[in-house]
Amino acid sequence: MRIGVLGAGQLGRMLVLAGRPLGIEFLMYDPAPNATGGRVAPLVVGNFDDRRALLRFARQVDVLTVDWENVPAASLQELTLRVAVRPSTRALAVSQDRLAEKKLFARLDIPTAPHAAVNTLAGLRRAVERVGSPGVLKTRRLGYDGKGQAWLRCPADIERAWEALAGQPLIYEARVRFTRELSLIAVRGADSAIACYPLAENRHEGGILRVTRAPHTNHALQVEAERHLRALLERLNYVGVLAVEFFEADGRLVANEMAARVHNSGHWTIEGAETSQFENHVRAIAGFPLGGTGARGHSAMVNFVGGMPAAADVLTVPGTHLHDYEKAPRPGRKVGHVTHTGGNARERDRAVHRLLALAKAAGG
Amino acid sequence: MRIGVLGAGQLGRMLVLAGRPLGIEFLMYDPAPNATGGRVAPLVVGNFDDRRALLRFARQVDVLTVDWENVPAASLQELTLRVAVRPSTRALAVSQDRLAEKKLFARLDIPTAPHAAVNTLAGLRRAVERVGSPGVLKTRRLGYDGKGQAWLRCPADIERAWEALAGQPLIYEARVRFTRELSLIAVRGADSAIACYPLAENRHEGGILRVTRAPHTNHALQVEAERHLRALLERLNYVGVLAVEFFEADGRLVANEMAARVHNSGHWTIEGAETSQFENHVRAIAGFPLGGTGARGHSAMVNFVGGMPAAADVLTVPGTHLHDYEKAPRPGRKVGHVTHTGGNARERDRAVHRLLALAKAAGG
Repeated sequence: MRIGVLGAGQLGRMLVLAGRPLGIEFLMYDPAPNATGGRVAPLVVGNFDDRRALLRFARQVDVLTVDWENVPAASLQELTLRVAVRPSTRALAVSQDRLAEKKLFARLDIPTAPHAAVNTLAGLRRAVERVGSPGVLKTRRLGYDGKGQAWLRCPADIERAWEALAGQPLIYEARVRFTRELSLIAVRGADSAIACYPLAENRHEGGILRVTRAPHTNHALQVEAERHLRALLERLNYVGVLAVEFFEADGRLVANEMAARVHNSGHWTIEGAETSQFENHVRAIAGFPLGGTGARGHSAMVNFVGGMPAAADVLTVPGTHLHDYEKAPRPGRKVGHVTHTGGNARERDRAVHRLLALAKAAGG
Repeated sequence: MRIGVLGAGQLGRMLVLAGRPLGIEFLMYDPAPNATGGRVAPLVVGNFDDRRALLRFARQVDVLTVDWENVPAASLQELTLRVAVRPSTRALAVSQDRLAEKKLFARLDIPTAPHAAVNTLAGLRRAVERVGSPGVLKTRRLGYDGKGQAWLRCPADIERAWEALAGQPLIYEARVRFTRELSLIAVRGADSAIACYPLAENRHEGGILRVTRAPHTNHALQVEAERHLRALLERLNYVGVLAVEFFEADGRLVANEMAARVHNSGHWTIEGAETSQFENHVRAIAGFPLGGTGARGHSAMVNFVGGMPAAADVLTVPGTHLHDYEKAPRPGRKVGHVTHTGGNARERDRAVHRLLALAKAAGG
């Protein structure tokens, strides 16, 4: 079996490394000839809106999946006549548009922050009046790692925020006063079986995920999050890994956004869970039975953003495993991560302290 | 950093898959253009006695290691002037000759079966008289998976055994009446740090490893085995993973043979230990700190010999992870393995029963 991966970033790279032991071949597709996924599997270079190139690519594989969730849904729709696309183009289309995503959450009784679509300056004024401030104005499409967002502390910030993002479909969301950020990763097999990982706790800085700790053990929230993920997976007839980021606010979950792919907050599963999110995504889209999703001890993942510390320095910290994406360093760019697994949460937190210091020294 | 691997079988393949996350590149060397290791890293095709080709290969890498322990030590010795060879050519030379290996064991007070070198029919008669029968006549070099061996139940078998193997340097060993077969895998870093995995229990059939269970918890034997491995690693100034197969006889260990490389009886470490033998070999030869070698739960590894069962059938067994080497099926050939990890030894043994049935159905 050969899996085609649209986008050849670190997520695609880790899918390949998880799938090769299963005897599955991969073919990558990316506009960048030096994309990191192309260093572990053959790479076809092409643009995501080049329908003929995508069609040629699709003919060479048995199933298509994405490393980058913003592959235009229209391009993908055409390919579904030729090859299975997993997750479905409908799931990808929803996850590409923050407004469509919020509407789906609402239909499934998944709580979200108060929000309103915004297309004009007058519309933004109305939205802020209705939803309140502080809040954040976001592009409906193509935002990631804090990009495409402008904060409004008060109504006086309206024009500045509008100028920053005007010209594209927007959404205004009230700020959620949260205790912590959590995420749940779940996977649905081609046979409709569903498995959920334990909740993970995430810490962002400047819109970029810095640290994930897992498992975050809170039975009530785990049950709540799993209910939401199951609803989404079933409604979308989803096959593969789905991630939802939540805020915990007043002891309840508020959905922030979903990702129709493997997710940075699930990288700890490579060493910290019975089966990694990458292997389970491959198993799901290949039509194999899912693997167990239980945690193995306590794990933490620290992202390397902007630059990599020396491997020997990282591996000096006991219990660590290094993942170097072999990407050129650049401010704000995720170039690798390290996972620590250990017997207890205290050891883990000591390791996180040392690893964060290395991360900051290498890249900020 | 780029590691060159001489031999591109499944061991080399698994070294690559373990080393790529560390940001290490690999270059493989093998006489077979379709060698499985060449499906996960660039492959240079050449013979192991082609010194010029080996020299060209060595110039392209930072450190050399072996997937196949029988790369001629003479070819390797020449390369040490150009590039670090890890483990050392001395360690490889010893492990290539059963007699040299036994002599080293004796010098380090590591018990072995009574044995004698054999070069003539008369010599074999003398050896059988001195060592006793039953016993086994083996080629000193190039034996594996039960090849190059002839059993002698009694002195009447002498001529038949001689005819089967005559013409090459031989060794005759008394049969060891053993309770079980155990192996210990250890690793020594470039910084001289040593780490040992827990003992594993192995079951062979027809000379081929079929099942490994780990950890085999016997404190006294673990201490004894670790003492032997440490003595070998230090005497050989070894860098990398070393495996020794033992018989347990009358509650003591008798060394059978060593392998100067990652070993089939350590495949369970990919999922069943804190750090896999493959990652630790890469860390050692790259000069990185070693990773933890503790077991994570109870594991079993079942080899697929002769043919692969369907992936979907294997993965139906809970707690399993599949490793398909993508090799053409052939009687007696190892084409893949499956590892089961679980909370307790009983679950593991139930899984082994199911997995062995699949293995037998697929390949015998």
